Amino acid sequence: MKVAKFGGSSVANATQIKKVGAIVKGDSTRKFIVVSAPGKRHKDDFKITDKLIELAIQHNQNKPHKNLVDTILNRFSEIIDELNIQSNIVYELEQSIESILNSKEPDLIKMDALKSLGEDNSAKIISEYLSSIGLHAAYLNPKDAGILVSNEPGKAQIFRESYDNLKTLRNEEGIFVIPGFFAYTMDGDLVTFSRGGSDITGSIVAAGVQADLYENFTDVDSVYAVNPTIVNQPKEILTVTYKEMRELSYAGFSVFHDEALIPAFKAGIPVCIKNTNNPNAPGTMIVAEKKPNEKCVVGIASDVGFCSLYVSKYLMNREVGFGRKLLHIFEDEEISFEHAPSGIDDMSVIIRQNQLTAEKERKILKRINDELHADMVKIHRNLAMVMVVGEGMTSTIGVAQKATTAIAEANVNIEMINQGSSEVSMMFGIQEIDINRAVQSLYTTFFE
Amino acid sequence: MKVAKFGGSSVANATQIKKVGAIVKGDSTRKFIVVSAPGKRHKDDFKITDKLIELAIQHNQNKPHKNLVDTILNRFSEIIDELNIQSNIVYELEQSIESILNSKEPDLIKMDALKSLGEDNSAKIISEYLSSIGLHAAYLNPKDAGILVSNEPGKAQIFRESYDNLKTLRNEEGIFVIPGFFAYTMDGDLVTFSRGGSDITGSIVAAGVQADLYENFTDVDSVYAVNPTIVNQPKEILTVTYKEMRELSYAGFSVFHDEALIPAFKAGIPVCIKNTNNPNAPGTMIVAEKKPNEKCVVGIASDVGFCSLYVSKYLMNREVGFGRKLLHIFEDEEISFEHAPSGIDDMSVIIRQNQLTAEKERKILKRINDELHADMVKIHRNLAMVMVVGEGMTSTIGVAQKATTAIAEANVNIEMINQGSSEVSMMFGIQEIDINRAVQSLYTTFFE
Repeated sequence: MKVAKFGGSSVANATQIKKVGAIVKGDSTRKFIVVSAPGKRHKDDFKITDKLIELAIQHNQNKPHKNLVDTILNRFSEIIDELNIQSNIVYELEQSIESILNSKEPDLIKMDALKSLGEDNSAKIISEYLSSIGLHAAYLNPKDAGILVSNEPGKAQIFRESYDNLKTLRNEEGIFVIPGFFAYTMDGDLVTFSRGGSDITGSIVAAGVQADLYENFTDVDSVYAVNPTIVNQPKEILTVTYKEMRELSYAGFSVFHDEALIPAFKAGIPVCIKNTNNPNAPGTMIVAEKKPNEKCVVGIASDVGFCSLYVSKYLMNREVGFGRKLLHIFEDEEISFEHAPSGIDDMSVIIRQNQLTAEKERKILKRINDELHADMVKIHRNLAMVMVVGEGMTSTIGVAQKATTAIAEANVNIEMINQGSSEVSMMFGIQEIDINRAVQSLYTTFFE
Repeated sequence: MKVAKFGGSSVANATQIKKVGAIVKGDSTRKFIVVSAPGKRHKDDFKITDKLIELAIQHNQNKPHKNLVDTILNRFSEIIDELNIQSNIVYELEQSIESILNSKEPDLIKMDALKSLGEDNSAKIISEYLSSIGLHAAYLNPKDAGILVSNEPGKAQIFRESYDNLKTLRNEEGIFVIPGFFAYTMDGDLVTFSRGGSDITGSIVAAGVQADLYENFTDVDSVYAVNPTIVNQPKEILTVTYKEMRELSYAGFSVFHDEALIPAFKAGIPVCIKNTNNPNAPGTMIVAEKKPNEKCVVGIASDVGFCSLYVSKYLMNREVGFGRKLLHIFEDEEISFEHAPSGIDDMSVIIRQNQLTAEKERKILKRINDELHADMVKIHRNLAMVMVVGEGMTSTIGVAQKATTAIAEANVNIEMINQGSSEVSMMFGIQEIDINRAVQSLYTTFFE
């Protein structure tokens, strides 16, 4: 039995939803369908969720928002008309919007309620449509599915009871269409996951019902071995482990919400990334373990926008606690660090640059001088991180050699290497301006 | 004006001390002479300091120690006889030993007092000898030199006032012979530096009197580019910066006490490592800055006896404070870490293996599980660290490529790479059994 999750582009209009219908109909083991809100139909289109957020903000600021409501309703009307299904969905949606806007709830609660409407109505439409093509399908609200979460609007965390509740659905008749992205607290209040959270719902459902496979339908045939905006038509990844996927999605691979892998990972459910527009393509399988093969590098990830804060102090390594104190200063400013490589008398803390506001920078530098009495502190901005990812890499002789040779051949200076902390990746820090050359050269070395 | 420090082998017997005399006489700018206790005369010989420590321990345990006292006295007698100088030194030394052993001071104080006798009497003998060959030389006790330290027996720390006190000696007449290794607290109590601390005294004196050069006389012509027990007759290093020397001396280069560089470094006094047995060899200069040259790698250091503790937890990098908490656990067990490279969901803490007793290991593993809820913890023992050291390395394209190629060609797997935290070194973690092959291959690549 499978859980199939369809992303925004897969449910963007009637044409796409018909493809979803064919996919669900084509495999009777696809029993749990999790859906996103309608996404973009073309590059310059809007996403329903963005319009709902805009609506919440406009209303909050007492600005006119009738146009927004119309845009949202029209989009759903159009889908329903083209799918040729009978329903009160648009009328009920209008009533829901009205009632949320007029309620006396706090703004955060209203925001989450509005945001949920995209997925919720998408699920209602799709269950109607699946029924209309002869499937025994029903809409299932997350509350009725028993998906319980913490009371943290916009960043809900799953409660363990949810999995037991979901498990009871295994033996129910028919197909369930469940809206992604939101769930309910113990008190019955609606809250949403973080953005892109339909992936999380899908993963939770897959773990709960103990699916044989969690299919994640998107608009690409597979995960690519490298960012396709840097390398033309890169190789597709057929199989990747959870650990590899996690490293890839961290740096530039945005195909999959990184938090979403956890429930599937913990329950050992394999995940398949597939294309709604080309469902016969094999897609990319995400699994716990894969057979070792001679090519241990599975992908090259890259991302920009990092900076490093370098601290040097003579005899630093004799001071028990220096590194810990340095990291504590960042923690106090609520800055999470990516890496903290240390030498004998030096330590660098690599962070995402956007976390370091001028105010925080001033505070941190002051504390490093006042409390740690550093000899020197330097900030190095506009760094890019390139990660070469693959299981078994650390036990294969010569991978570092190949990678550093590729980077040197691209005439790129390596500012930083971090290998060995992760068992499945090797990280290189370079200047942002060098990123394309370095990644292209690495791709050529490992994949061509 | 120069400060010349002579190590244990340089003052081990009369023959060596005569060389010291010739060196001091040969350059009238050598005004401050700092000396160690007599060291080994040949490979299987004993060091006076070791006998003094043994004496303290035997006495403390109420064990017979007359033989030890005789051995110590005989060694000094022999030196004095062969140098053909008149003195009461041996008689006074015997009285000193008696009086320390019979005193009511705490054991730690007695220990430091006994340990200091080696250097103290070495200095007295050498000043007598220098006078006997026509030099205007005088013994100068560290108390009279104004060298003031903290009251930490066996690990005294210098007080800043010392430098001002020493400065006044610049304009005094003649040559001063100062015993290394010990100094006095504000209350006038004798305490020693850490072992090998004569280098520290020399460096402090050089900084205080604002010497033009601090000469450190040993039994090697220079610092070598690599450990001579791994590579036969390696190249000599002519010039090295303080920073490079610090990295080199950290891992395997034991020629110079690492703490000893600080006073010279802070005062900007260049240091020269020279050979008492071949004083005309140029030696190795340690300086603040050197001219950039095409060969940026100055040396390859290596050391064994490390282990890494690997911690993995899904979504670790979202947990602000994880790294800091992990390091705190080590700090609580008084274990200093060497490196702590971190990946996205992984962090490794590299420590010197001898710090991890079974008891501490048990405690640390328990806390990592109980407090940090790690998914996996693994301990990886018997690691070696190899460091490629050189200023300007991090801004030279291709150094990492050369190094990783050399290691791969030696058929050695790289467990860990740490580059970029230090501006002058690149660190590789490998298995201990691979160390010779890896170091030999790196040496060939960078020096042949």
